Amino acid sequence: MKNLFTKYELLKGNFGIEREGLRVDTNGNLSLTPHPKQFGYKMRNPYITTDFSESQLELITPAFSNTKETYKFLNALYDIVAMEINDEYIWPQSMPAIIPEDKEIPIAEFCGCEEGKIAREYREELFLKYGGKKQLISGIHYNFSFNENIIEKLYENSDKSSDYKVFKNDIYLKVTRNYLRYRWLLIYLLGCTGVVHESYQEECVKQLKEISKDSFSNEGALSYRNSECGYKNKIDLFPNYNSVKDYVDSVNKFIDEDLIDTHKELYAPIRLKAKDPKSLLNSLMNDGINYLEYRSIDINPFEKSGIGLEDLHFINLFNLFLLIEDESDYENWQQEALQNQNIIATKGQNDVELTNDGKTISKKDWGVEIINKIRLINDELQLEQGEIIENIANKINNYKETYTYKIIEKVKEEGYINAHLNIAKKYKLDSYNNRFKLEGYEDLELSTQILMKEAIKRGIKTELIDRSDNFISLEQGDKVEYVKQATKTSKDNYATVLAMENKVVTKKILQKNNIKVPDGSEFDSLKEALGEIKNFINNPIVIKPKSTNFGTGISIFPQGANEEDVTTAFEIAFKYDSTVLVEEFISGKEYRFLVIGDKVVGILHRVPANAIGDDVKSIRELIEIKNQSPLRGKGYKTPLEKIDLDENAALFLKHRGLDFDYIPKKDEVVYLRENSNISTGGDSIDYTDDIPKKFKDIAVRSSQAIGAKICGVDMMINNYNDESSEYAIIELNFNPAIHIHSYPYVGIERQIAKEILQLLEF
Amino acid sequence: MKNLFTKYELLKGNFGIEREGLRVDTNGNLSLTPHPKQFGYKMRNPYITTDFSESQLELITPAFSNTKETYKFLNALYDIVAMEINDEYIWPQSMPAIIPEDKEIPIAEFCGCEEGKIAREYREELFLKYGGKKQLISGIHYNFSFNENIIEKLYENSDKSSDYKVFKNDIYLKVTRNYLRYRWLLIYLLGCTGVVHESYQEECVKQLKEISKDSFSNEGALSYRNSECGYKNKIDLFPNYNSVKDYVDSVNKFIDEDLIDTHKELYAPIRLKAKDPKSLLNSLMNDGINYLEYRSIDINPFEKSGIGLEDLHFINLFNLFLLIEDESDYENWQQEALQNQNIIATKGQNDVELTNDGKTISKKDWGVEIINKIRLINDELQLEQGEIIENIANKINNYKETYTYKIIEKVKEEGYINAHLNIAKKYKLDSYNNRFKLEGYEDLELSTQILMKEAIKRGIKTELIDRSDNFISLEQGDKVEYVKQATKTSKDNYATVLAMENKVVTKKILQKNNIKVPDGSEFDSLKEALGEIKNFINNPIVIKPKSTNFGTGISIFPQGANEEDVTTAFEIAFKYDSTVLVEEFISGKEYRFLVIGDKVVGILHRVPANAIGDDVKSIRELIEIKNQSPLRGKGYKTPLEKIDLDENAALFLKHRGLDFDYIPKKDEVVYLRENSNISTGGDSIDYTDDIPKKFKDIAVRSSQAIGAKICGVDMMINNYNDESSEYAIIELNFNPAIHIHSYPYVGIERQIAKEILQLLEF
Repeated sequence: MKNLFTKYELLKGNFGIEREGLRVDTNGNLSLTPHPKQFGYKMRNPYITTDFSESQLELITPAFSNTKETYKFLNALYDIVAMEINDEYIWPQSMPAIIPEDKEIPIAEFCGCEEGKIAREYREELFLKYGGKKQLISGIHYNFSFNENIIEKLYENSDKSSDYKVFKNDIYLKVTRNYLRYRWLLIYLLGCTGVVHESYQEECVKQLKEISKDSFSNEGALSYRNSECGYKNKIDLFPNYNSVKDYVDSVNKFIDEDLIDTHKELYAPIRLKAKDPKSLLNSLMNDGINYLEYRSIDINPFEKSGIGLEDLHFINLFNLFLLIEDESDYENWQQEALQNQNIIATKGQNDVELTNDGKTISKKDWGVEIINKIRLINDELQLEQGEIIENIANKINNYKETYTYKIIEKVKEEGYINAHLNIAKKYKLDSYNNRFKLEGYEDLELSTQILMKEAIKRGIKTELIDRSDNFISLEQGDKVEYVKQATKTSKDNYATVLAMENKVVTKKILQKNNIKVPDGSEFDSLKEALGEIKNFINNPIVIKPKSTNFGTGISIFPQGANEEDVTTAFEIAFKYDSTVLVEEFISGKEYRFLVIGDKVVGILHRVPANAIGDDVKSIRELIEIKNQSPLRGKGYKTPLEKIDLDENAALFLKHRGLDFDYIPKKDEVVYLRENSNISTGGDSIDYTDDIPKKFKDIAVRSSQAIGAKICGVDMMINNYNDESSEYAIIELNFNPAIHIHSYPYVGIERQIAKEILQLLEF
Repeated sequence: MKNLFTKYELLKGNFGIEREGLRVDTNGNLSLTPHPKQFGYKMRNPYITTDFSESQLELITPAFSNTKETYKFLNALYDIVAMEINDEYIWPQSMPAIIPEDKEIPIAEFCGCEEGKIAREYREELFLKYGGKKQLISGIHYNFSFNENIIEKLYENSDKSSDYKVFKNDIYLKVTRNYLRYRWLLIYLLGCTGVVHESYQEECVKQLKEISKDSFSNEGALSYRNSECGYKNKIDLFPNYNSVKDYVDSVNKFIDEDLIDTHKELYAPIRLKAKDPKSLLNSLMNDGINYLEYRSIDINPFEKSGIGLEDLHFINLFNLFLLIEDESDYENWQQEALQNQNIIATKGQNDVELTNDGKTISKKDWGVEIINKIRLINDELQLEQGEIIENIANKINNYKETYTYKIIEKVKEEGYINAHLNIAKKYKLDSYNNRFKLEGYEDLELSTQILMKEAIKRGIKTELIDRSDNFISLEQGDKVEYVKQATKTSKDNYATVLAMENKVVTKKILQKNNIKVPDGSEFDSLKEALGEIKNFINNPIVIKPKSTNFGTGISIFPQGANEEDVTTAFEIAFKYDSTVLVEEFISGKEYRFLVIGDKVVGILHRVPANAIGDDVKSIRELIEIKNQSPLRGKGYKTPLEKIDLDENAALFLKHRGLDFDYIPKKDEVVYLRENSNISTGGDSIDYTDDIPKKFKDIAVRSSQAIGAKICGVDMMINNYNDESSEYAIIELNFNPAIHIHSYPYVGIERQIAKEILQLLEF
């Protein structure tokens, strides 16, 4: 294999995770409220649904080609969900929180449609057969397949005695069998269910002893979820994993013998998955194995997502180990493996003995043996994952490094419920602080992150088609929409966008529609401009390059200027563009109206970086506190920027006889610079509910005049309280940022992304 | 006035021209065919209509702020019309060509609607009253108003004893009166109707003598059109020009006295124009004088447009003279002015005597007096028009410099009909050679010029909103469409355009729709790319930067390449973009399919610059001839570029053992370079009718897949004759050039602009 593959190929693959989690109230009781409506119809949302219970969330990532993306997406799903469940929390543990008696446990509700009825009936049957409490156990399901290149190359280098499909099946069957053999190690490493709450199933709890308030365990327990206390078939079932056909036959036999109702009821630690999940067994036969699902992994309470990135990286290596490791012909390997699992699950923290091919071997020795083989693979294939392997080796050598040990310690201190609730609260605060961004996509523009987040929440299939372009697709049913930078959509036509891009064209169109814009002239040469300079002297004017942005090359003369200054202003403007505009100066404040469809969904005004006094703290201290807001960051990754107490600010204060140590009076506003750009620490203030309808109507008319569906209208208003106040449209923007309205410094956080999705008819 | 105005203000204004012209057949007979349908409904086309006769074209420019634009637009209108009248010509002379007897003259046809009926009836009445032949006299109507700034500033500097409207009226009335007084000079300078054809009105012809075959004149005649032979009221009418009210009253009096039917029948040398032409007299009273119309100007046969640019510039100065020149209180000034006109019209080439305020003065002396005053104005106001004034002065001093003298000389040589027909044929050839461009707009992209030309032809109001952006508006009735660069329209949505702009997104969308694109991978760093280099060695591939264009940074390996070359190719590509694509190489030829709406309207293939032999001429000679085509130019101002026999071409030939002096065999094709870009002299070959439907359908499906309405689909096809041939879509272009299809080197000129206008629902 050594020279056949690149490191990138071997570490890539297809990785998807499902993570369940109970909704609980502030006291740790299972929530009895319905699944939030924002998540849409639960059978259609590919990301957020429920499992058995109405209160049992299931978060599902798409398949990504590397585990890091999968991990981050799972965190993102957590953040999204946590913000939509009001004062509830996501229980950070596989074993349940405080659960009521069976009859109180809410089974998931579905629509009255055929599909919904079947889903509901299936759950009711499980409820009768296994009881409600066990159904509430939550877990991590890890879905993976190798990079197809790997299998193709292996096939090319094989004797090709079978066809490709069989070859590929054989690879996944080998991995499956080895997974079963070595799964005890994953359970040891990732087990987190060594303690249960007293409200859990009586049969289970009564075997354990109370180690803390309401918390029950046994010496050395590692993963009750993977033990007899967990969720398993009534009797142990051992499907035949020799070939796909044998597997399908054996599962069908279980069904025929009434041991299970359907293949879905086979609670094996691993499942073979096929292209068509609705007709799994047929699809396995026809299409072959598509991917594998590992089901032994507990929710890790120390991870918001329920599973750690390093652990995911390790599983990657573990998969390669399972692929490479030769198998023995020991006959009772399935029974032996189950026995090993049970030993680890119930006593794995201790120095237990396992059996390998009938021979006894200590947990530690066997673990070290496996790790050494993984080390070898890492070296041979130059995978550069040494650090991760050593951390895992450390856990094998020291049970105190296991998650179970750590959570039990915490439970002993705080009690089962509080220990987990405190963690859940911390995660929820984290989600709140992250509310303006989408984990895994922080390199994208905030507006795109916000829109993706909203789409994912509503179960619209969201794909990043081109990262550097902030280009996404949104898909639901037959409908596909492509969106760039959150506000560039199919709803706007190209000519409209190009008209908005061009200041002169915009003005002409607005004028034609009787909307007030600053009067002005356009010059194509300095000579021509100076030829008419007589007309501009001593008039309130703005001189600006036609198409540059961000204020470069612009001169503003609110009180007019003499010939020399106007000449200089022209000279400057012509440095930036071959066409220069002269416009009348309009006094007042500038407001950004965000028009979506035919309504104003947000109005924002920006003020320069400032400190507001409290009679006590200095400017320096006030700014330090202001900068602590998670909304403020550096480099446009947050809705607001941290205020820099730089030379410019110092100079600005100095001109006013102040410095950073000045202590402003209560409510005194001290500005730190002239310009109100958010990029230099300016504040964004929401005025959506303050500005009268008249001006909103003008904004909508402006947007309509140019034919825009999404439009940022920049309007100067002298005094918005006075409806007869002078106004003028300064500019129309075809790519207005939405984050400034979604997360203003002062005011209501407007749900702009929702409006965009509505415009797109999702 | 000296310091009040800038030169720019004084020379600007609003200038519009109407130019009539008879359609004639190849022998100079008045055409009896209908007005071409391409020009749309004649009462709605603001540019091209008919006057009295169905065969009497009327070309109308919009008002431009400088005369040069007006002049060029008039030329452009000529070019447009000349290309749509099949084998007919536009008669380049005010006095008619060969005209039949009255009963054969076709009066303009209109729709059966109320408006049409009125227009028809009005013409029938004129026909009865004045006869058909006089109605065929054509002319130039010059419409102008001063730059409003001038009038405003004059008002600001006046005693403001009247209100602004009256002040403005008084200015235009003074200009009107002075125009009447001094119009004899314009007739002298611009008169071109010193000779008529024998088929013209018998009353007139019989007074003249034959100076050449069928050509009649009198010694010294200058402008029969402005004489009794011309088009005038039955008796001389002198409206009152003292005030607008007096004027309106006097015109109403003429109507009451049955001297004329309507104000339109007042054939004065100048007309006062108001905002609302449909209710002219009322509008004059209510809104004041809006502009003036000079009607004394003959069609200049030496100008395609019918009037020269220098003459237009002079009229500008003449207007200022009329504005400034003090008036005398001589009572019979109107009668005197008419008398002066008649003298100039019939004998103006001679040294005639005129009368000024009752005093006799020679034509020459008076002319010099006026010119001296204009010189003074030019100097005082720093207008820098000295050269033009001197040319005019020269004409005053020498009648042989007049247009009339020159055309009579030509008629003497060739006869009236041939002299004018030969001119008309030259202009028509000129129009043909200009067919791909729009005069006055040659700085725009060819595609925009072609679209504008088509829109103007069809009577769609076409305005250039932003020159540097090639941004136009198209307007008809209530409908307005904005178009940038000819193919960026409201019909395409923004998301679609952005998807096409991004190669990766385009490919993903096409793949999703099962359209073949080159397989490929995308890399965000050189390291990552080199990490997978094993997969690319010795495979036919293309390595290219993600978003640069025009072939920069692209390496093509049709036969595959070794590790070193592939590495170098990656290094080069990453210089141009942070993302690099590797794609399979697709063999075959590249074709550009232009899809508009749901159909392929053009298919083009480009071949490198080449010479095709004839057994006689050298490559140098062949290329010289090829370069003479008006379609070939320099700097993208023509559909094709001239072929440069540069070092690259010499080297290319040298490698093949040839040089520029080589004489290729008959039909031997010698290429001069590798690349087929039009910019380096490549040829464009139309394949629209050659490529099978299958590939056209693929192009349409590609365009539909991405949701485009106008789309340039670049397709590689191995062998288009074989429908099962391999193909792949290389790129989709959202701003495809149309000129390459409209004016290919080989093949049918496709009417792409028409397709775009249809897509836009005009």
